[in-house]
Amino acid sequence: VRLTGDGAAVRIIDQRLLPTEFVEVDLDTLDEVVDAISSLAVRGAPAIGVCAAAGLAMSMLAHEAAPRHAFIAALRTNAERLATARPTAVNLRWALDRAVHAAEGTTGDGRAMRAALVREARAIRDDDLAMSAAIARNALTLLVAEPIRVLTHCNTGALATAGAGTALAPVLVAHAAGRRVEVFATETRPLLQGARLTAWELQRAGVPVTVLADGASAALMRTRAVDAVIVGADRIAANGDVANKVGTYALAVAALHHGIPFYVCAPWSTIDVATPDGNAIPIEMRGRDELAKLGMTRVLPDGVPAWTPAFDITPASLVSAIVTDRGIHRAPFALGAAART
Amino acid sequence: VRLTGDGAAVRIIDQRLLPTEFVEVDLDTLDEVVDAISSLAVRGAPAIGVCAAAGLAMSMLAHEAAPRHAFIAALRTNAERLATARPTAVNLRWALDRAVHAAEGTTGDGRAMRAALVREARAIRDDDLAMSAAIARNALTLLVAEPIRVLTHCNTGALATAGAGTALAPVLVAHAAGRRVEVFATETRPLLQGARLTAWELQRAGVPVTVLADGASAALMRTRAVDAVIVGADRIAANGDVANKVGTYALAVAALHHGIPFYVCAPWSTIDVATPDGNAIPIEMRGRDELAKLGMTRVLPDGVPAWTPAFDITPASLVSAIVTDRGIHRAPFALGAAART
Repeated sequence: VRLTGDGAAVRIIDQRLLPTEFVEVDLDTLDEVVDAISSLAVRGAPAIGVCAAAGLAMSMLAHEAAPRHAFIAALRTNAERLATARPTAVNLRWALDRAVHAAEGTTGDGRAMRAALVREARAIRDDDLAMSAAIARNALTLLVAEPIRVLTHCNTGALATAGAGTALAPVLVAHAAGRRVEVFATETRPLLQGARLTAWELQRAGVPVTVLADGASAALMRTRAVDAVIVGADRIAANGDVANKVGTYALAVAALHHGIPFYVCAPWSTIDVATPDGNAIPIEMRGRDELAKLGMTRVLPDGVPAWTPAFDITPASLVSAIVTDRGIHRAPFALGAAART
Repeated sequence: VRLTGDGAAVRIIDQRLLPTEFVEVDLDTLDEVVDAISSLAVRGAPAIGVCAAAGLAMSMLAHEAAPRHAFIAALRTNAERLATARPTAVNLRWALDRAVHAAEGTTGDGRAMRAALVREARAIRDDDLAMSAAIARNALTLLVAEPIRVLTHCNTGALATAGAGTALAPVLVAHAAGRRVEVFATETRPLLQGARLTAWELQRAGVPVTVLADGASAALMRTRAVDAVIVGADRIAANGDVANKVGTYALAVAALHHGIPFYVCAPWSTIDVATPDGNAIPIEMRGRDELAKLGMTRVLPDGVPAWTPAFDITPASLVSAIVTDRGIHRAPFALGAAART
């Protein structure tokens, strides 16, 4: 995810087409960016933030000639539209707030403010790259056994960020450094980010990966084939409760039962100190069709409802450690206090 | 699943086509019956037993004119082929042994022995009907809260047996008796027996049912939307360890974590006293394509392996009760001793 050279378009990989097709698309309207985020063409909490900031900068190109007050009004309107494309990931609003503040803090006309937006979108992307590297460095102080054998969920690699990812970053960095790594990836129903994206990324990187049905994860842990569970996060509350892809909580419960550590890797920007605990995190409900249809085939009888939360909450008590670019955080999580330092 | 009137064919519903198409098929060769079982056109441990006994009786029609020793040799060969169609469900071999013993215990020629096989296949089916009713009666002594709110996995209803099912039997019987029932059904990856079959059966019966991704089950339990988890079994060891559809163990772990009772409903014939514990139960591995493809669409990159056990083992320590047609069995499970009484 990045702004094109002239800042007139946001270039993305359409993740919906992987692994069958690798297609890059240039988005040059606000509607296209909103749709790409809400339809999960772009997904992964950090990547959504990078995409939104780039999309906001792109969308203000048409307003460069506007007077300052009109530019700011349009900027706020566009930011609000992007912010509501998905409700759970806090990085989305964090990146937009950062971009809006950068523009409004710039003296001068629309042209100057738009230049500030482009600079800030690129800075957010650069920071994301540095964030991935820092998370990998910090997480690898926890993953000392050889080989590294982890179970992961959903996709938290390079597709989900600008850099090497969040939960996959330590795996990719360790492999690149010559350490032995084995990854088990849940397929991650309903949208199969594990099978389609994580398996594709790890295979391209040369990391051994095996995919399993989400429901088989507890049975896998019982075989002692993995030494840690490592996942990303879409929002972390001040008390350490974690919102992440639905199915994460089941893995945390099973990890506790088997005495396997459960690590959450996420950028510091994923921590929302304004949210006291998991109960306060809004959980996006996805459409019924994600469970009711496989491609064109109907697998759920018409009229039968589906329960389709996109995310679930893992209480802090099940989290062995939260690894951010700022360090390793353990219970009792006082993330609000840490944020003030 | 039943023998046709003349005993010349086994009539089944092809469960692979549900819920899109409801198709009954008459199988009139041994190959077709073996293929129906191994491809899961017929599935559900009790239904496999009924189907195998019917298939064996059907297959011996061509041998009616054979002398007794030749008939018995062909009978044993055919029974062995059917027994190896799937390795985990013990009802398959139990039903075949029962049929073979009935034939061999009959004096007379091939015609007499074949008549005994037809009678025994029908008796196994009748017993299965009575088994479902007894399981429902026994399980309902445990499900006393109103409404009955359960989470179930895979398909354990009328499609899986000759009667109302195993784990779904109490739900169907209670609904028919006017009690309020709410069922949550996991979709059950990879073959979606929950979405395709359980939802279809319960909708036809008028029982409210909601489908969810397997990985969402723990999050559902956390909402306190269900009061019990109720599943079937493919084989139960003498110590109470349970082999059932992969994903069952994860539900048992999550149920324990949430203080929700975990009930296994199965015919007494599912208990294999010759198997001391779950480690001795062979676990069928399914083909990679069940995870790698959705219909015609490839979702797993070529070359990435999948871990595809059809079943997992839930240790007896996680089982609140095993409900059979003989009663309610609780820890410490001394099922071998019970079998000798």
